[in-house]
Amino acid sequence: MRIKALTAAIVLAASNFAIADEGMWQPHQLPELESVLKQKGLEIDVKSISKLTEFPMNAVISLGGCTASFVSPKGLVVTNHHCAYGSIQYNSTTDNNILENGFLAKTPSEDLPAAPGSRVYVTEEVTDVTAQVNQGTDGLSGKARYEAIDKNRKALVAECEADGSYRCNVYTFHGGLEYYLIKSLEIKDVRLAYTPAMGVGKYGGDIDNWMWPRHTGDFAFYRAYVGKDGKPAEYSKDNVPFASDSFLSVSAKGVQEGDFVMVTGYPGRTNRYRIATEVDYVFNTAYPLARKHNSKYVELIEENAPEGSQARIAYESTIAGYNNYIKNYGSMIESFKKGSMYTRKQQFEKDLAAWINANSDRKSKYGSVLTDLNKLVAESQAHNQRDRMLGYVHRSQMISTARMLYRLAVEKQKPDAERERGYQERDLPRIQARLKSMSRRYDETVDKAILLHFLELYAALPKSERLVEVDKAFNLTNGFNKAKQKALLDDMYANSKLADEKARLWMADLEFSQINASADPFVQYAKAIFTVMKQIEDQDKELAGKQQAARPALMEAIIAYNKSLGKPVYADANSTLRVTYGTVGGYSPQDGLVATPFTSLEGLLAKNTGVEPFNSPEKQNELIKQKLYGAYTGGMNTVPVNFLSNVDTTGGNSGSPTLNGKAELVGLLFDGVYESIIGDWDYDANLNRSIHVDSRYMLWVMDKVDNAQNLLKEMKIVK
Amino acid sequence: MRIKALTAAIVLAASNFAIADEGMWQPHQLPELESVLKQKGLEIDVKSISKLTEFPMNAVISLGGCTASFVSPKGLVVTNHHCAYGSIQYNSTTDNNILENGFLAKTPSEDLPAAPGSRVYVTEEVTDVTAQVNQGTDGLSGKARYEAIDKNRKALVAECEADGSYRCNVYTFHGGLEYYLIKSLEIKDVRLAYTPAMGVGKYGGDIDNWMWPRHTGDFAFYRAYVGKDGKPAEYSKDNVPFASDSFLSVSAKGVQEGDFVMVTGYPGRTNRYRIATEVDYVFNTAYPLARKHNSKYVELIEENAPEGSQARIAYESTIAGYNNYIKNYGSMIESFKKGSMYTRKQQFEKDLAAWINANSDRKSKYGSVLTDLNKLVAESQAHNQRDRMLGYVHRSQMISTARMLYRLAVEKQKPDAERERGYQERDLPRIQARLKSMSRRYDETVDKAILLHFLELYAALPKSERLVEVDKAFNLTNGFNKAKQKALLDDMYANSKLADEKARLWMADLEFSQINASADPFVQYAKAIFTVMKQIEDQDKELAGKQQAARPALMEAIIAYNKSLGKPVYADANSTLRVTYGTVGGYSPQDGLVATPFTSLEGLLAKNTGVEPFNSPEKQNELIKQKLYGAYTGGMNTVPVNFLSNVDTTGGNSGSPTLNGKAELVGLLFDGVYESIIGDWDYDANLNRSIHVDSRYMLWVMDKVDNAQNLLKEMKIVK
Repeated sequence: MRIKALTAAIVLAASNFAIADEGMWQPHQLPELESVLKQKGLEIDVKSISKLTEFPMNAVISLGGCTASFVSPKGLVVTNHHCAYGSIQYNSTTDNNILENGFLAKTPSEDLPAAPGSRVYVTEEVTDVTAQVNQGTDGLSGKARYEAIDKNRKALVAECEADGSYRCNVYTFHGGLEYYLIKSLEIKDVRLAYTPAMGVGKYGGDIDNWMWPRHTGDFAFYRAYVGKDGKPAEYSKDNVPFASDSFLSVSAKGVQEGDFVMVTGYPGRTNRYRIATEVDYVFNTAYPLARKHNSKYVELIEENAPEGSQARIAYESTIAGYNNYIKNYGSMIESFKKGSMYTRKQQFEKDLAAWINANSDRKSKYGSVLTDLNKLVAESQAHNQRDRMLGYVHRSQMISTARMLYRLAVEKQKPDAERERGYQERDLPRIQARLKSMSRRYDETVDKAILLHFLELYAALPKSERLVEVDKAFNLTNGFNKAKQKALLDDMYANSKLADEKARLWMADLEFSQINASADPFVQYAKAIFTVMKQIEDQDKELAGKQQAARPALMEAIIAYNKSLGKPVYADANSTLRVTYGTVGGYSPQDGLVATPFTSLEGLLAKNTGVEPFNSPEKQNELIKQKLYGAYTGGMNTVPVNFLSNVDTTGGNSGSPTLNGKAELVGLLFDGVYESIIGDWDYDANLNRSIHVDSRYMLWVMDKVDNAQNLLKEMKIVK
Repeated sequence: MRIKALTAAIVLAASNFAIADEGMWQPHQLPELESVLKQKGLEIDVKSISKLTEFPMNAVISLGGCTASFVSPKGLVVTNHHCAYGSIQYNSTTDNNILENGFLAKTPSEDLPAAPGSRVYVTEEVTDVTAQVNQGTDGLSGKARYEAIDKNRKALVAECEADGSYRCNVYTFHGGLEYYLIKSLEIKDVRLAYTPAMGVGKYGGDIDNWMWPRHTGDFAFYRAYVGKDGKPAEYSKDNVPFASDSFLSVSAKGVQEGDFVMVTGYPGRTNRYRIATEVDYVFNTAYPLARKHNSKYVELIEENAPEGSQARIAYESTIAGYNNYIKNYGSMIESFKKGSMYTRKQQFEKDLAAWINANSDRKSKYGSVLTDLNKLVAESQAHNQRDRMLGYVHRSQMISTARMLYRLAVEKQKPDAERERGYQERDLPRIQARLKSMSRRYDETVDKAILLHFLELYAALPKSERLVEVDKAFNLTNGFNKAKQKALLDDMYANSKLADEKARLWMADLEFSQINASADPFVQYAKAIFTVMKQIEDQDKELAGKQQAARPALMEAIIAYNKSLGKPVYADANSTLRVTYGTVGGYSPQDGLVATPFTSLEGLLAKNTGVEPFNSPEKQNELIKQKLYGAYTGGMNTVPVNFLSNVDTTGGNSGSPTLNGKAELVGLLFDGVYESIIGDWDYDANLNRSIHVDSRYMLWVMDKVDNAQNLLKEMKIVK
């Protein structure tokens, strides 16, 4: 399922543009595409979808990592079941297992509090702050440039967040060619209003994850609450449902093959403009190694946390997350081998260079951009072995917690505005949450086994790639000896307090001098490597500063080149609000097979084994057998469950409303097909397909299976 | 791949008839279907395909377990690569690995001898011998009836085989309602003329086995040789290619979606007329248990024969065979659960009973047939736990060999005609071959581990289901004790000579008195259980005799009932020559997916990883990249590799020629899709699809990849 985009270490490059329905467009770009959109089937005024404060864009909201939308005047929010999963789990008990059985608040008073930290963000303003961000950076380069930009960004955010009702961020577009400040209303009282049973909402589970055919009712409903004054407020029983400026109507008629659809949401991250050398490294080195190491990681957890044990329960979500990445990388490596992305990138760079060199103005302006960036990329990869292995060593929860606590104390010595991002006052609630959540996700045996394994791999690096401080701390100077290292770790774990939640929270409040004097062996490790890791961080910032100059230059050249070809350019996804459009339709996943665009209730029943994850509720099965479709067929001889379209989406788009030409909600985006996973790097018009849960199925489940008449009445259903 | 049909313990029942293109028709039935065949696309005279001695039927031959056809005037035979696999393997050496690299005899003088025992059978006469088989059985029942029939059958076979050139068999149709004597010319000198490389002939291997999309070039060529006098003869360099009465032309134009095709061949066994209670037992008990025990069997081999060991090599084909069955049973159980076979069977039996009871004549004739058969079925299942576990215990190669040798000596005391089938003079070459082949397929550790495991399961049966003689022989009277039983087996294996090929062959020649006095512990076991196993065999014969009366009666009723509905009835497959017809076309394997009817060279290349089983020859890859299709596209924008049709086939049909309306060879049948595996029990018009290798691909490989111009010249290619 699409939750968060795969992040990667670096950012930007070249690709094929404007083929088919590729593109995650910023709303303000849409007027440029008006004729295409109209021809495809957009019926409403294109201007309305280019303004954030008008319908339908003001009904589209972010949950932070997922997208959602308002569907009633009373703050009712629809999103994916997998986006509300944490809140559903949070409210489940052995006596009242709402994850298993579903939940419906018969009135808003029965709404359940969402998981701590749940938020609804309503984007209200998007401001181009490129000039402000770059202010005072002329003549600066490297780390100095990086820090100047960072300071400007923090100042913009601080100013914007002065009123406590808002969350603000400066987002980078085109690798730094443009910066936008985005101001979102931060609704803090979010409640769970309705979820179908797991046998609907997570039907197919991990087996069907990323797969077609699909039969998942991946939807659930929140309700957003604010204080009586209409302003965001922490949870209180006196809070009232939020009345959004607009909300979406939901279609009971749905779509047909060939229909226009658009998806508005918050895609996380894509890498469509990376250069060929970056692609080469990522697909031929980084992903294969990540797959290998992550597989070992899962293997170590499974070995050290036997099935059914408390430890296994603690690591289930970690395992699921890693397995998702393993499947993900596997698909991307497979697609990369079969496809032609690399040669196309190379060709594009040749064409671009030829275009640049054909004109002396362009040559003087962009002549060195590709060479410059290639050099920086090579530099950034110089210590990738070291960085990779240290990364895995530092994933130990004891080490990462100790490092975070130590760094927090370091940063807290500075004024808030000067602190490293992630350690400012605004970040403290998240740090607290992380220190708490570790209690449910940690087991000493597992953590130790993983650390021991990766220390062994780290120790096998050539000496030049190891850090003296790390070698010393783990007694690796004379090589790795399993028994010896195991004894050393046993000792460290036995003498550390970090496994204790209270101790962790207590440490988070310590002054620097106190934590610096701590005898905790993991804190001592954090202290021992602090200086050298800071040096590496500074080198990274130096490089980032250089890239902040080089990438925008390349991107400017790419945009100019494409403009000369009459092609508009969309920016890589960066968790900001985007619009993508396309058509309902299938594809051929491989020679001899065609994926047809709709699945049906009958197909859902045919998959049902009665065993998780194919355990559809008995009531649903009976309704299907009796063909009690109600008014939700949209002219088909069934109720369609999921459908495919070629809209261009990625992680973060989960829960996004899928709209028809009238901006009525006809579905929710919730996944992409297996062959589209590489879409984060390369959009293939033949294979890039998104998976939507059909609004007809949502309404049918609400009406027939779960009897959610109260919500249906509150919503505006288009029949 | 379809090699041999799954055999099951008993025979017959009810089904839905004459839907779609269901039916494996005896050639003499085809005139009844003339109008349908013509309407579907048959262009040649239907009478010609109903006569075995005329074109094209006299070009269709059996290899025993596979089908093949003559494709030149010089005895050239085309069949599946997997049907010639044994012969290809037999001729492969480390220096000249023709399995890996392929092989082409540039002239017939370079043809290689096929694996020992390879035969080509040309059916020459089919005679209805029902009256002769039933002669003298009036008034007999049970074992007496069984034995009388058996005697009559043997006499017919012996008479027919008097001339040494023929192999004859009496085949049972409709559970004994009809018997046919089939006389086939037995060509004994079979040679390998051509095989593509494994990367073509076995492309996709076990992974793609039973699967679509498919890209397998599953074809190879034999050549049949006879003595200078034109009569079958053992291998001799003086033999000459066999000139068959006719041979098939091969189409370079191929077929298109919707085209008529027919397949002529020797399907092994189907169970389409079993009654509901039998189906219930098989799918809810027998197959799930077989899957479980067979999985354990494979597990034990893998545990005791480490990868790379000599023992593992010896068991590779055993493992592959078991895995094929496990996949097979898995598919059938899955299809059974999803489908409605059981309720349709029940409904059919109700309808049939109603039809029978509606008329007093019918009632008096067939009134008790269903009740009778249900009773016999229940009786046959009474000791199924015992029979199952004893079956696995007796699969030990030491035990099965000892039992075979002991039985052989017993039978050899009788005149040939009175011996048990399988132990007559005509069977001795096969017994010899089996005693020899054990040398390549046996390992003591593995055999012992499997025996020990199944002895434990046997020992856990209730006492009433165990045999005193078996308990005594394995010292199980006071229960199973692993260490004790292991020591006993160690002793038995250490003191047995049966692992030695010479000793086995020597024992096969012993008189009964000699073998009865043998000190070999496994022979002693065979002796110890002989009487009790003979009793069980006699009980089975008693039951078989009763079924030989009951099943034909039910089948007669079914045929009469269907006749009243205007539906012709085909008999279950029984390894005799049949014709099935249908149309080239895809299907929907599941909701949301469509299998399209053709795969292409491009799809083949897309699957190629360079690693077995997806290791296509470099030359083929290059030709595909360069789109060098030659004259083999048949109007498509590629060379089609495999195609789907709805013809009704099963194991034994492998290698069958697929013919167009003019009886030109347009492909070779080689497999069925995963969803069609249950087709042995139930033909589902929506899911039953056969997989063919396209004649265009065969010719393209011969012409472009392997340069087999000599064979192409010899054949008649229709352009």
